[in-house]
Amino acid sequence: MKIRLGILGYGNLGRGVQYAASLCEDMEVAAVFTRRDPASVKTVLPVKVEHTDALASYVGKIDVLILCGGSATDLPVQSVEAVRLFNTVDSFDTHAKIPAYFAALDRAGKEAGHLGVMSVGWDPGLFSLARAYFTTLPGTGEAYTFWGKGVSQGHSDAIRRVAGVKDARQYTVPVESALERVRSGENPQLTTREKHTRECYVVAEEGADLARIEREIKEMPDYFADYDTTVHFISEEELRAKHGGIPHGGFVLRAGKSAAGNDYLMEFSLKLGSNPEFTSGVLVAYARAVHRLYGEGKTGAVTVFDIAPKYLSPLSEEELRKTLL
Amino acid sequence: MKIRLGILGYGNLGRGVQYAASLCEDMEVAAVFTRRDPASVKTVLPVKVEHTDALASYVGKIDVLILCGGSATDLPVQSVEAVRLFNTVDSFDTHAKIPAYFAALDRAGKEAGHLGVMSVGWDPGLFSLARAYFTTLPGTGEAYTFWGKGVSQGHSDAIRRVAGVKDARQYTVPVESALERVRSGENPQLTTREKHTRECYVVAEEGADLARIEREIKEMPDYFADYDTTVHFISEEELRAKHGGIPHGGFVLRAGKSAAGNDYLMEFSLKLGSNPEFTSGVLVAYARAVHRLYGEGKTGAVTVFDIAPKYLSPLSEEELRKTLL
Repeated sequence: MKIRLGILGYGNLGRGVQYAASLCEDMEVAAVFTRRDPASVKTVLPVKVEHTDALASYVGKIDVLILCGGSATDLPVQSVEAVRLFNTVDSFDTHAKIPAYFAALDRAGKEAGHLGVMSVGWDPGLFSLARAYFTTLPGTGEAYTFWGKGVSQGHSDAIRRVAGVKDARQYTVPVESALERVRSGENPQLTTREKHTRECYVVAEEGADLARIEREIKEMPDYFADYDTTVHFISEEELRAKHGGIPHGGFVLRAGKSAAGNDYLMEFSLKLGSNPEFTSGVLVAYARAVHRLYGEGKTGAVTVFDIAPKYLSPLSEEELRKTLL
Repeated sequence: MKIRLGILGYGNLGRGVQYAASLCEDMEVAAVFTRRDPASVKTVLPVKVEHTDALASYVGKIDVLILCGGSATDLPVQSVEAVRLFNTVDSFDTHAKIPAYFAALDRAGKEAGHLGVMSVGWDPGLFSLARAYFTTLPGTGEAYTFWGKGVSQGHSDAIRRVAGVKDARQYTVPVESALERVRSGENPQLTTREKHTRECYVVAEEGADLARIEREIKEMPDYFADYDTTVHFISEEELRAKHGGIPHGGFVLRAGKSAAGNDYLMEFSLKLGSNPEFTSGVLVAYARAVHRLYGEGKTGAVTVFDIAPKYLSPLSEEELRKTLL
């Protein structure tokens, strides 16, 4: 019997989950849930679309609900409500709030007898795994994370709020020389400015004061003031043609010396044509894991740290040992 | 209370385990076991050295025994005997024999009520994890493994068996252009010859026929005939000075297209000053995991696929979520 998925929220992430599940022979999507008028939602592949009000009527018809809303306002409310009805997977990524979010999800899941895996994707997610595996090795050396080159939605939005800006795209770019210093085993102390630069492609309104826009972007606290920021003014056509995608990626590295003084370097990197779609693929793999762990009686909240790799794979344990060990 | 380790076998791997454990606040080495005369063994740090005949007298004094023998003859016998007395960790890497080895270890472990984790290190081990995590992602694209640049002990030994050869060191080198083809998402079909080259540094006996030695190396079936092989004749002094280490490393990559057709590349790489010492560090981290899983009632045989990352880390679950998620 296939694992029956529900998709809550149908933006980039929800569409990606539907695509990814379509490649998994052991999965099917039972329904997509939206706060919009279901009739207005065009799906990338055929599927039943329901209003979120209908969620409770799917109890018994869905094995795992994948939450595809945002971390800021959607997930903190949705996850706790959803785990009372279903097993869940989400991509919560507001780092400072992880302990409180975990506690709430764990309590609700245990009360309801369901399992929720939180903070799944590539960071948090695969990058968290790399940091965890890398730092278990006895030896000197910190784990470093660099992001990019890739589009930051939050920073792009921040630029769009500047007066006179019509549209914008912001790329986070890792500083190659900083990466090299880490790879060398130097274990440098790196400031925010030394790790990443920010490249902004901005479409200004006609007649806008470009110098003022550039200054306001570069001086924006939290978002840009601590970085070396470059601002390029381009046309709307160029933005659409050259900056329409949502690529991202990054690096997790640990370099140092082992106990006897031998050098080592561990490096994990991702280069992603679509940030949300890659995240969706990871969500789907963890939906499989949640379904299996729930079948073993596990309830409450878990993270990627709590889940053995075998639970993610469509292969059997025997096949895994034979083909991938 | 600290995790009490035993080390069975005291070559490069055993020494590395002792070094690595010395950096772990939650571990101590109870004893080293050797088939040699214990009085003849010089340890890198102070520790009790016992003959392997004394193993059974350490039941109750050791939590995890780390097996540091070779895969060819030592481990298949040792692991099954050892798991009857202790929880164990080993680095078994004879790929074709993994299913039979697992079955024997699992049966013996379950009968005795102990847990053994097999095939731990970097490959098999961390590279296996990368292959497993990478291939859970829905999408096109195979997982590729490249090894090197690094010393292959087996190939170095094979050269030493050629008449007229005094000493030798063989490096396995990944072909950069093949790596680039994989990174590009081409998903190429690569022959053995296209993936790796072999570089041999050979010290010949005085008056030996160098042309014949070179020919015999290059034509050696299994070891060299299927590769582009380079042979450099050097002096004994140069071999000692420049090729004394046991570096290794490699790459696991998967590149392709996600379900909606977006490109992605996942890449994990290692660059290791000492192959056996890095392996030792991984063995020690998995000793911690075995000790904890045994505490939860788990017995039989497991591999890296069966073990959630949290079990490896000295950090608590709360700390892991707070600092690494």
